[in-house]
Amino acid sequence: MNAVNTIDTGSVRSHEQRLSRTGTMRVASKHRPLHLESGDCLDDASLAYEVFGPLYTDSVVLICHALTGDAHVTRQNAEDRPGWWETLVGPGKAIDTERYTVICSNVLGGCSGSTGPTSPMPSSGQPFGPSFPRVTIGDMVEAQRRLVDALGYTRGITVIGGSIGGFQALEWVRRFPHKIAAAAVIAAGTSLSPFGIAFNTIGRKVIRSDPNFRGGRYTQDLPPADGLAAARQLAHLTYRTSSAFDKRFGRRTVQARHPDALAGDRFEVQSYLDYKGRRTASRTTALC
Amino acid sequence: MNAVNTIDTGSVRSHEQRLSRTGTMRVASKHRPLHLESGDCLDDASLAYEVFGPLYTDSVVLICHALTGDAHVTRQNAEDRPGWWETLVGPGKAIDTERYTVICSNVLGGCSGSTGPTSPMPSSGQPFGPSFPRVTIGDMVEAQRRLVDALGYTRGITVIGGSIGGFQALEWVRRFPHKIAAAAVIAAGTSLSPFGIAFNTIGRKVIRSDPNFRGGRYTQDLPPADGLAAARQLAHLTYRTSSAFDKRFGRRTVQARHPDALAGDRFEVQSYLDYKGRRTASRTTALC
Repeated sequence: MNAVNTIDTGSVRSHEQRLSRTGTMRVASKHRPLHLESGDCLDDASLAYEVFGPLYTDSVVLICHALTGDAHVTRQNAEDRPGWWETLVGPGKAIDTERYTVICSNVLGGCSGSTGPTSPMPSSGQPFGPSFPRVTIGDMVEAQRRLVDALGYTRGITVIGGSIGGFQALEWVRRFPHKIAAAAVIAAGTSLSPFGIAFNTIGRKVIRSDPNFRGGRYTQDLPPADGLAAARQLAHLTYRTSSAFDKRFGRRTVQARHPDALAGDRFEVQSYLDYKGRRTASRTTALC
Repeated sequence: MNAVNTIDTGSVRSHEQRLSRTGTMRVASKHRPLHLESGDCLDDASLAYEVFGPLYTDSVVLICHALTGDAHVTRQNAEDRPGWWETLVGPGKAIDTERYTVICSNVLGGCSGSTGPTSPMPSSGQPFGPSFPRVTIGDMVEAQRRLVDALGYTRGITVIGGSIGGFQALEWVRRFPHKIAAAAVIAAGTSLSPFGIAFNTIGRKVIRSDPNFRGGRYTQDLPPADGLAAARQLAHLTYRTSSAFDKRFGRRTVQARHPDALAGDRFEVQSYLDYKGRRTASRTTALC
């Protein structure tokens, strides 16, 4: 069965000719607005996506990314830059792009090609900034469903994701069970635990407290990098266990490059967290 | 045996007359400076202390407090304000002030009556602020040892403490084993794990990132309350387990009083952390 020949309505045409492997797809317009769970509405929104492997197979794998991810899950070809899940997705790998049609898109609000706080407001042309509406997992999934439908993939989808991507995978199953063949839900659950809520609350507080955040009206030149780095470091403590840190770092020290060191020495774990924080701050924008 | 009749040298006199139950004791002077592990030196330092129960018994219990504690571990009498370890220390309680001589002092650097960053510098009369030397657990214990000696308690001491107080209890055993009869070390170890280092590093970063911190040159009128609150909230996540949060809070919501709430509701755990953060910020000064 070719996924193009589905029972879906109007929007599906002969994709063989027109489907681009990487691109942006409009998922909301004045005629077909996206009603968000907050009560807000977007009447112009697009998602950035990539398709890997054969364009049409019976085995469609939809990858949902985590908080700071994007649509570029793996390389399109040998010359391409590495993707964020290169270890798992590619020719001959667990998610085998020689056998499966693999799709990934940047979430609504994600700002890596998809509509989000850095996008221009239709009314003024200025970036949404802090006035971008709050987006839920359900909103992300509804936007992605519109994309996947428009690409012609409407049935037999295997959905996979970790963390916020895992929550999206679950939401796909809940909202569109008839479209889903299987789901792989990694590091997610049906709800966030109070401990998880606590970590996230403190992380947001730390970002907002950065003087450069300015109520979300920060500039690209002077972003809240310290707050974002600290929030990323904090989040990292939920990705690993204390015993994993014991094994990896122990109390090994490196040469001090940081005023936080007590007596010239500095713990390797501090240096590692510094790196994680700085990398995220340079790659991510706080409002996303 | 009366603790006054010890083999200690000069500073011990007849304490029966002169020992005050609450007071401040000088532990460093020009003639007897306190050499810190950092290499710095204090030639004027005092500790605030309290003594509970009979002034002299064979059973002396020395309580070492945690990060934000003070010398007031329990009430001196029925009219007194509650202490921080009221549940454990008092007449007929586990640490029985009808049977034991109980001592507690505010740590060196603690700023609750003891010399610390808010104390005036001998040279200028201005507060030390960020130029107060870094103090280690060993420094705290050496200062406290001088206090306890001066009070006339030199042998058979049972030392007890949790968290930073636990580290002090261990250090007492290591440095002065001949003075210690028993030690109760709670929530501490011989070294801090890399996971613990990570939490503390992020907490300090969050305090320093508060725009009011101003490199430690903040004013009492405009302290880095947000940073301190966030650091306290973060620390709290190391005091409890995820399952304890599940039991205590679940995903119960309270009425929103905070802009962080998504849709008018707000999780009880957020409200609880807010309270913990605000309370610490109002009671503690960041440099301590």
